[in-house]
Amino acid sequence: MAVTKLDETIAGLKFTDDGLIPAIIVDAESKQVLMMAWMNAKSLKATIETGRTHFWSRSRQKYWMKGETSGHTQEVTGVSVDCDMDTLVTEAAQHGAACHEGYRSYFSRRLDDDGDWQVVAERLVNPDDVYNKGQ
Amino acid sequence: MAVTKLDETIAGLKFTDDGLIPAIIVDAESKQVLMMAWMNAKSLKATIETGRTHFWSRSRQKYWMKGETSGHTQEVTGVSVDCDMDTLVTEAAQHGAACHEGYRSYFSRRLDDDGDWQVVAERLVNPDDVYNKGQ
Repeated sequence: MAVTKLDETIAGLKFTDDGLIPAIIVDAESKQVLMMAWMNAKSLKATIETGRTHFWSRSRQKYWMKGETSGHTQEVTGVSVDCDMDTLVTEAAQHGAACHEGYRSYFSRRLDDDGDWQVVAERLVNPDDVYNKGQ
Repeated sequence: MAVTKLDETIAGLKFTDDGLIPAIIVDAESKQVLMMAWMNAKSLKATIETGRTHFWSRSRQKYWMKGETSGHTQEVTGVSVDCDMDTLVTEAAQHGAACHEGYRSYFSRRLDDDGDWQVVAERLVNPDDVYNKGQ
């Protein structure tokens, strides 16, 4: 298979020693940060070619497509890179809740004046309805 | 010195084996992602207590305050954490350009349809005016 310009562009990124690059996913419309996860060259290419976000799970050591269990996929509308070529921002239209806890964004907790986390977001869905169907 | 609630909250975060946590900095007003850098417990505490973003440089193995050279500091307006407790989003008012290349955000390059990066942002400042004064 011929090496494409996209292959060259991906090869030009600075991956970690483990071959990973952090990808910040932002809502295409509101620009809100939805999540951060890790991609390798293969999952980045899949993200660009399929238009759905794909990642590499460090804990499970496997590929995953966002929404493969929940149906809450992310349709990619753009990919940006920083000046150090070592971090990505991916804009995506989020279907449903990004977070496993049922919040739109993973970042639902904010530090209060007492130095403690407070949930500041509202649940979009009940996680039990999404992840435990049939149980 | 007494252990504060904030110390406990920081200790409850999931740091990497190197004691680091990725911090995504977003513009407090536009919500645009400005940069991503690494904090350790000490730089996170400094960020919260001084209201200016502090980081740990992995390449230089030292603390740095954003803007210490350029004057382009970031005034913190909020800190959020994700459900996995392993990534931070820090909202900040950015003075001047975040990026060393003179762009407001580090993420000035966007992937085009040919699979190549294109600069899509405009320079706010000439980097030479900021970083090479007196040379």
